[in-house]
Amino acid sequence: MASPTRQALQLRRVAIDTYKENVAYLHRDCHVYRSEGFQALAKVEICVEGDGRPVLAVLNVVDDEAITTRNELGLSEQAFKQLGLPEGTPATVAHARPPASLHAVHRKIGGHRLGYAEYEAITRDIVENRYSKIEMAAFLVGCTETGMEREEVLDLTRAMVASGDRLDWEEPLVADKHCIGGVPGNRTSMLVVPIVAAHGMLIPKTSSRAITSPAGTADTMEVLARVELPVEQLKDMVHRYRGCLAWGGTARLAPVDDILIAVERPLSMDSPGQMVASILSKKIAAGATHLLIDIPVGPSAKVRRQIEALQLRKLFEFVGDRIGLHIDAMITDGHQPIGRGIGPVLEARDVMQVLENDPAAPRDLREKALQLASRILEFDPDVRGGQGYALARDILDSGRALEKMQAIIAAQGEPPAAPQLGRLSKNITATHDGTVTAINNLQMARIARLAGAPLDKGAGVDLYRKVGEPVTAGETLYAIYAEFDSDFTFACEAAADSSGFTVTTDSGAPRSRA
Amino acid sequence: MASPTRQALQLRRVAIDTYKENVAYLHRDCHVYRSEGFQALAKVEICVEGDGRPVLAVLNVVDDEAITTRNELGLSEQAFKQLGLPEGTPATVAHARPPASLHAVHRKIGGHRLGYAEYEAITRDIVENRYSKIEMAAFLVGCTETGMEREEVLDLTRAMVASGDRLDWEEPLVADKHCIGGVPGNRTSMLVVPIVAAHGMLIPKTSSRAITSPAGTADTMEVLARVELPVEQLKDMVHRYRGCLAWGGTARLAPVDDILIAVERPLSMDSPGQMVASILSKKIAAGATHLLIDIPVGPSAKVRRQIEALQLRKLFEFVGDRIGLHIDAMITDGHQPIGRGIGPVLEARDVMQVLENDPAAPRDLREKALQLASRILEFDPDVRGGQGYALARDILDSGRALEKMQAIIAAQGEPPAAPQLGRLSKNITATHDGTVTAINNLQMARIARLAGAPLDKGAGVDLYRKVGEPVTAGETLYAIYAEFDSDFTFACEAAADSSGFTVTTDSGAPRSRA
Repeated sequence: MASPTRQALQLRRVAIDTYKENVAYLHRDCHVYRSEGFQALAKVEICVEGDGRPVLAVLNVVDDEAITTRNELGLSEQAFKQLGLPEGTPATVAHARPPASLHAVHRKIGGHRLGYAEYEAITRDIVENRYSKIEMAAFLVGCTETGMEREEVLDLTRAMVASGDRLDWEEPLVADKHCIGGVPGNRTSMLVVPIVAAHGMLIPKTSSRAITSPAGTADTMEVLARVELPVEQLKDMVHRYRGCLAWGGTARLAPVDDILIAVERPLSMDSPGQMVASILSKKIAAGATHLLIDIPVGPSAKVRRQIEALQLRKLFEFVGDRIGLHIDAMITDGHQPIGRGIGPVLEARDVMQVLENDPAAPRDLREKALQLASRILEFDPDVRGGQGYALARDILDSGRALEKMQAIIAAQGEPPAAPQLGRLSKNITATHDGTVTAINNLQMARIARLAGAPLDKGAGVDLYRKVGEPVTAGETLYAIYAEFDSDFTFACEAAADSSGFTVTTDSGAPRSRA
Repeated sequence: MASPTRQALQLRRVAIDTYKENVAYLHRDCHVYRSEGFQALAKVEICVEGDGRPVLAVLNVVDDEAITTRNELGLSEQAFKQLGLPEGTPATVAHARPPASLHAVHRKIGGHRLGYAEYEAITRDIVENRYSKIEMAAFLVGCTETGMEREEVLDLTRAMVASGDRLDWEEPLVADKHCIGGVPGNRTSMLVVPIVAAHGMLIPKTSSRAITSPAGTADTMEVLARVELPVEQLKDMVHRYRGCLAWGGTARLAPVDDILIAVERPLSMDSPGQMVASILSKKIAAGATHLLIDIPVGPSAKVRRQIEALQLRKLFEFVGDRIGLHIDAMITDGHQPIGRGIGPVLEARDVMQVLENDPAAPRDLREKALQLASRILEFDPDVRGGQGYALARDILDSGRALEKMQAIIAAQGEPPAAPQLGRLSKNITATHDGTVTAINNLQMARIARLAGAPLDKGAGVDLYRKVGEPVTAGETLYAIYAEFDSDFTFACEAAADSSGFTVTTDSGAPRSRA
């Protein structure tokens, strides 16, 4: 059914957001629907005469002419945007040819080892929207831990790099850092970049927005500066200031990853192989030559045991070595949130306090940033082994890191409006005397998200106590901030349900409801 | 987020058919969408006060009040029907709790062996619509051939039976038959049932409609009689006439299978384990005690090699033995279509010709039906081993099978209108002299489907030549029938592209374009 049908339909934009999945809407009485023997959920290929690539979509059948008439071909927002043509354009629709690389996915599911050419074909078909969500799920499940050898992770990484563009900074040492995530408030990039750039090392940091967390580096940086920069402006400022803190979405870096995430997230699939390929392909595409990876370990972090962290580190190193990316993977303490704030405005406050050497600045955030920065500084052949930490501390204490941050903010541009802390707030207090013995990362992230973070930048959680600190009954453990009433209610309800804090009495008995 | 939100939305039916996947539509400016931090493709739980079970759906975000206003909760046809309440009913929406059994799916993906309790939890969650398509895909991929032990196939079969209702015929011997599919025109059930029922053996045959083929037994039987019968009428007529040829969808037999098929089909996943569990759970739920399974083998059939057919047979036998279902699995010749007609009207014609002992009746269909019927008749302890064939032939030749078929048709009721052969037709002819050496099942099925089968009952393909028969240039190989112009054009184009016939010249050189 590759040949388009003679009877064209008129394109219509259907204002339905189907996220990463293209959907086409055909009226049940449309002649094409009848004659093609389509069925709902079938994959179709949409072609416009004279236009190059067909757009692939999943079919939904419509019985309401207000949505799509029998002479129209409705397209969801995503599909309409991808086609990029005005409403009314004549288009034809036909059964989609199954992606040729699906054969390789079936081989992978059957327990075979795939080679580079197969991973390359799969990632290309995914980027071209030839895979449905269920086909992507089949691929991801076929590639889980037990099913993927490390050479395959290497091939997949290479294929993911090849799926998009690649930045070239034309310098021998391009530093980058990445945290695998799972610990709220862990906003070290906004400290590491100014420190490292102030030293003169190139560190063009591009970050993502939050996917499941209450804030990503891009969300938090956006409190202070614009982060959506055209690639040319990005390149220019990086050469001038040695660093940036921008959103990576404007460059087409390993785009297959952005598509797969739509399936990984709801499936909670985060197999080591996929994670390593995903992170390293983005960093290689971004032009990095030296990469520091932060692997936090803790009972409520993404990686829960030391042994898993070690295995993950070895996999990063294996792929990095073979692909020509120097990797330093650091296993860090992830047993509680870092800093005080959780949510963009609150995290930006923490970061600025550290840069400004404010006595109120959270010490754990400062300390972790210095540790990470010192390891990156030691990538520099001129920095003596073991001297990185003193160098990083000197750059921070002297105000040179703050100065560099201000230069980066000025270069990226002020944000349209400075976001404020949410107008609604509530203090969550301790129910009894004792010592804080645990703070659950997942529950704190959940409360901050319910409060509205990261969409409402001023929403979130501000921690007044950390693990090891004493607390008396009635004292504030943390404050919740929100902008909207309903968000506020949800976040407070969740905190009432489970505060996320464990306060152990002097007798040693933990009480989960602090 | 199990607790419903306070602010209810008004239910609205959105006339979009999303097949087996519930979709909920929320306007982007709806307060619930904002406050809940939803994202498109998130799974949500829809609750109505005072009503029992929540309905699960995938979220699409709408920017057009003509589809869903900001005070409404739009539901796709399927979701609206499942909720079963009028438009305007106040309903609340919340994040869906992930199905608890997803943990078992992750274990399966991780290479573990699951037990009955886990398969039972998974099938229950699927039947309750708690799984998204991608979660079902993850489950199916995790259960492929390499990953499923035969004890697990047994557990999955049991769990699928438990997911729905079970018919009890209150007789010690309830016969049934099933073909695993892949060979067009293989309409033996409509001959086997009257023969076996005429002998007095109970054979309450329920069938499906075509999913990927040009006709299922239910589609073809519908040319002659009504097939959608209430369960009570079905039971009554089976007790009176010893058999039926009805659609199985009215009884809730292993309903999880009907849901999984929405994912299996587009993924072309037909692993032996899934196939065996799917078929046997339906048959056990339908009350069968003795089952004949037809496994056609051929280069363009579902099973291509003898060794695979044998493995499949052994898996059927293993599960059947342990679950108390007597199984006789027959490996049959599937190298070309059976009979002449492909498509409901044409296949019904073939069946009636055989029953009427018409000299024009296709001999291969008659012969295969007698072989299958003889094996079922020998389930009867009173039929001497080796006498089944003679008995079946006698029932057919004497007209008792025809008589039984007429009684079954009368009991099920005449169809509202007798379907006719499609008004458009074209003969596909041989391009050169020679002998037919192959007919491709897949291509013949595709041409018949393009012509409109099974939706247009009169559409299809009528074979004039079979493998081994001589043909001279210009002679008709087959005729295409269609009702609609566009279908007709498509089918003819597909036949011009590849006729599906291989005609070998006397010199022995095959030419694919016959």
